[in-house]
Amino acid sequence: MAERYEDSYLYKLRHSAAHLMAQAVQELYPGAKLSIGPPIENGFYYDIDFPAPLKEEDLAKIEKKMKELAKLDMRILRMEVARDDARAMILDETIPGMGTAVAEYKLQLLDAIAEDQVLSFYDQQRTDREGTLHRFIDLCRGPHVETTKEIKFFKLMTIAGAYWRGNVNNKQLTRIYGTAFETQEALDAHLYMLEEAKKRDHRLLGRELGLFMFSPRVGTGLPLWLPKGATLRQTMIEFLQQEQLKRGYEPVVTPHIASIKLYEKSGHIINYRDKMFPFMEDEEKETYILKPMNCPFHIEIYASQMRSYRDLPVRYAEFGTVHRYEQSGEVAGILRCRGFTQDDAHLFVTPDQLQSEFIGVVELMKAVLDKLGLTEFRVRVGTKDPLSDKYVGHDDNWTAATNAITEACDSIGLDYEISPGDAAFYGPKLDLIIKDALGREWQMGTVQVDYNLPERFDLEYIGDDGKPHRPVMIHRAPFGSLERMIGLLTEQYSGAFPFWLNPVQIAILPIADRHIQAAYDIAEALRGPGFKVGAVPADCAHYPAAALAGLGDLRYRVSIDDSRETLGKKIRETQRMKVPFMLIVGDNDIEAGTIGVRSREKGDLGAMTLQAFAAMLPK
Amino acid sequence: MAERYEDSYLYKLRHSAAHLMAQAVQELYPGAKLSIGPPIENGFYYDIDFPAPLKEEDLAKIEKKMKELAKLDMRILRMEVARDDARAMILDETIPGMGTAVAEYKLQLLDAIAEDQVLSFYDQQRTDREGTLHRFIDLCRGPHVETTKEIKFFKLMTIAGAYWRGNVNNKQLTRIYGTAFETQEALDAHLYMLEEAKKRDHRLLGRELGLFMFSPRVGTGLPLWLPKGATLRQTMIEFLQQEQLKRGYEPVVTPHIASIKLYEKSGHIINYRDKMFPFMEDEEKETYILKPMNCPFHIEIYASQMRSYRDLPVRYAEFGTVHRYEQSGEVAGILRCRGFTQDDAHLFVTPDQLQSEFIGVVELMKAVLDKLGLTEFRVRVGTKDPLSDKYVGHDDNWTAATNAITEACDSIGLDYEISPGDAAFYGPKLDLIIKDALGREWQMGTVQVDYNLPERFDLEYIGDDGKPHRPVMIHRAPFGSLERMIGLLTEQYSGAFPFWLNPVQIAILPIADRHIQAAYDIAEALRGPGFKVGAVPADCAHYPAAALAGLGDLRYRVSIDDSRETLGKKIRETQRMKVPFMLIVGDNDIEAGTIGVRSREKGDLGAMTLQAFAAMLPK
Repeated sequence: MAERYEDSYLYKLRHSAAHLMAQAVQELYPGAKLSIGPPIENGFYYDIDFPAPLKEEDLAKIEKKMKELAKLDMRILRMEVARDDARAMILDETIPGMGTAVAEYKLQLLDAIAEDQVLSFYDQQRTDREGTLHRFIDLCRGPHVETTKEIKFFKLMTIAGAYWRGNVNNKQLTRIYGTAFETQEALDAHLYMLEEAKKRDHRLLGRELGLFMFSPRVGTGLPLWLPKGATLRQTMIEFLQQEQLKRGYEPVVTPHIASIKLYEKSGHIINYRDKMFPFMEDEEKETYILKPMNCPFHIEIYASQMRSYRDLPVRYAEFGTVHRYEQSGEVAGILRCRGFTQDDAHLFVTPDQLQSEFIGVVELMKAVLDKLGLTEFRVRVGTKDPLSDKYVGHDDNWTAATNAITEACDSIGLDYEISPGDAAFYGPKLDLIIKDALGREWQMGTVQVDYNLPERFDLEYIGDDGKPHRPVMIHRAPFGSLERMIGLLTEQYSGAFPFWLNPVQIAILPIADRHIQAAYDIAEALRGPGFKVGAVPADCAHYPAAALAGLGDLRYRVSIDDSRETLGKKIRETQRMKVPFMLIVGDNDIEAGTIGVRSREKGDLGAMTLQAFAAMLPK
Repeated sequence: MAERYEDSYLYKLRHSAAHLMAQAVQELYPGAKLSIGPPIENGFYYDIDFPAPLKEEDLAKIEKKMKELAKLDMRILRMEVARDDARAMILDETIPGMGTAVAEYKLQLLDAIAEDQVLSFYDQQRTDREGTLHRFIDLCRGPHVETTKEIKFFKLMTIAGAYWRGNVNNKQLTRIYGTAFETQEALDAHLYMLEEAKKRDHRLLGRELGLFMFSPRVGTGLPLWLPKGATLRQTMIEFLQQEQLKRGYEPVVTPHIASIKLYEKSGHIINYRDKMFPFMEDEEKETYILKPMNCPFHIEIYASQMRSYRDLPVRYAEFGTVHRYEQSGEVAGILRCRGFTQDDAHLFVTPDQLQSEFIGVVELMKAVLDKLGLTEFRVRVGTKDPLSDKYVGHDDNWTAATNAITEACDSIGLDYEISPGDAAFYGPKLDLIIKDALGREWQMGTVQVDYNLPERFDLEYIGDDGKPHRPVMIHRAPFGSLERMIGLLTEQYSGAFPFWLNPVQIAILPIADRHIQAAYDIAEALRGPGFKVGAVPADCAHYPAAALAGLGDLRYRVSIDDSRETLGKKIRETQRMKVPFMLIVGDNDIEAGTIGVRSREKGDLGAMTLQAFAAMLPK
């Protein structure tokens, strides 16, 4: 199993950096009240109640003080204390940063810790050359690094407002975000990544490239896909459909709504209500619900006829749009929407088939990621939180399902980590966490093993013993959702999608109006017969027919820039749209039966024949 | 313009047949109270309050009496009378079938007729050879045929309950349905058609062929598409997508729900509320609405950027699922659903482009129907009902839009009839009424011209004068809806869909288990490389590789029957599934590199090579 971030040295380092920052704040802003300061993904923060508002430009001062303090090489020591002693310590006016004036939040934290838990403080102190005592002591579970000297490569990033305990009725504190790394290179790489990420923001690129839009009249988290985005979606759907057909999946199409009866049966009404849109209720009509998951529909189809063991596995696939009422603060472009399309499928298998089918799904997912150019990922197995009651089904089923996942991973040598509490409400799951070109991690595709819904819906098949048996279900989505995957790919490629995926693969640029007819001739040759073309000026020459011969039945996605702009402007616009190839057509080209080819990656490739161009295109 | 059914001789004949039936009922069932008896599509009915319940078997008796009465050659005479005289006539105890005892409904009908309207009765009478007076007189607008002798070819069909005035709080009357034709041949053809229609019922075939299903837990009018049906849908979508790409349409994808704000703006909240599902309302959340039409979304996309006259026409196409709360009594299989997928598109055009774009749409629709084998249709132009207030927009816009439609029809020589009151709430429309193989008519595809929504949403483009102008919108759907079109095609072809459309095009039938490997080899050759096949018994022989050579890159939809049934049973099952071709593979075939081919239409074609088979497949 892979090491969890929570167990890593980096996690401790960031935690200690948060303490160091708090110490610097204490020294610079006497009277500042500390609350909590945990490490987080990519860094740390501390929430502080400042006596006067803090500004972004103050961060440099705090950072400078941190560097001074770090160099003091303070040992970071753990102390375990009794509750009364802990309270006395927090209120001890003789310790820098302690005392009644600033103890407000620490006392509340102390009171919130269960009676039977060990209480610990972390203490770091040193008297400097001038004889001044620097000391920071914090109620904290730890763990931490050994000395402040280890905290070398850090940066304070930004400030934000944060309500005490996340409750809008409480006071708003100031949250200072920072980050820390083990090496200067790692810190630099992270800062570069953040800069790059800003440039690659899929919301920005989505608008620039004409992929999707939002409208306040339509609503938060409900994207409208523009022609280029719709084409990209379609290309991804067609690719995965083919992969699935090859593997024996069958397509189904199910409604976007259903009677409340279906979701009562499935358990969604009880276990998933907080994620669902308001119900469609009317005194005289049946209550309908916008579909939050596709599974109950595929189960209805499975259950609609008698199944034999010879029919299994049954694999139903659907690009099914589901709706989940995410909090508006959690909605983020197309990465997290309220309406999104899952590349969903449900496999109904015999217990004997479970392992091989599970492995088949994981192999499909790996093939899909490979095609998308996403080759770095880790695997997380989400299991039941033993303390929560948000799950359905017997413990035996949960154990069987969890074992099925881990055994399948072991059998194909797939490294994974266990994440308790990350299961779906009906079963455990395997999530793929993809690392993108900037090293950021994204939770994407998922596979779930489910013994529980088959039981709730009393699903059966007749075994070779002639008796009814219960099938097992696998839920899976290699992309996770089309929206989120397109968001990730947009950032991964900065919008310069691979040739097979780009909405426009080839742009044809006539140099002047008199070359428009030739441009259309070339477009027809590249995108297939029968495609109508626009109006053409009267005095245009055709492209020589001989130069179009022998291309075969090509079906590329081609655009023509027949605007009245200069060639320079046309080229810049095509580059801005990140089209993989542009073909420039002028008098000489029409004369010679050539085209001027420019590649997005390799620049100007000079004049060549269409046949030579077609031969160099990626397969 | 084509003759309207309401103006035809057949319509009069059926109206007179209804009167004749009422006369027969009067003579056979004294005390029966008549209400209304109009001609309808394919026949007529009369709603009657019988003194004792009527049974289906009584219809023969009534039919016999009608034949006797018809032969009396009674002249059918129109009388126009004053209101007081009309009332006196209805209450006249001396006229057979009149008088206070039976006048209840007729008096109510009389009272409901506006003061300024002409009141007319139709009277038919004759004294027979035995001296008995047969007379029937009915308050009726007419018109009728001249004599009962013309009513020769008729049949009473069925009885049903019908509330007086369609109100469930009123008394339930007995409705007798009948039909009448001008010739025996036409009547026979109609009766044959009804028998055939029963066999072709798409609900029955949909279940038998595994196309779609319904589930009470999902809800009325919400089909779930099974693998074969989903494949059929996908084939139709791909075909139309290609046709649309060729014609310069661009795909878009929009959400299934939107904020109520969008529909307030579009006018749906006021003008379409009775067709909409209950709203998704929650005190703390925005109110969302299940999309009843795609147009407002496409408008949002159009409005999201500045448009120049050089960008127009803009043609946005989407296979958009919409939801309409049809009354449960109106829901009928997949012909009328509550959730269905429109092959929708919206064209935004300059006024100058309107006519040519409209013609382009009609041509596309004709090409689509031609491909589907639906070659007989008539055209109905639905215009505004001048007396209704359910429409939005200025009269000028309505006139311009209506003229655009009729002028475009005239310019391409398309015959049409005008149907006032059949417009959409935002504009007039052209509907295609298709005649199927049984002569039944189906309202399918539609084109609408709309000046009003562009105004409501303040849509603009910059003209070549540099000033803002208002575009015109065309709404269109060649299929109408995928669901309804598939329902029609299922009945049109009795489920034996054309080769290009059939979900399974070729079925491969290994004679015994030892031929399964060869069957899979052939399947791979026909449906393309990479498609995985099922488990194969160990001792199976491969099909000779040489016999698979030179087939090229084929992508047919192929099934393999690897069940343990006898060949006879496999053949019958494949015939029942109406697969166009079946390929039978046995020892001799594997030896000789042949297959036994059976065609759905032509029967056994004998042994041939795969190359010869592939060459004879429809393109």
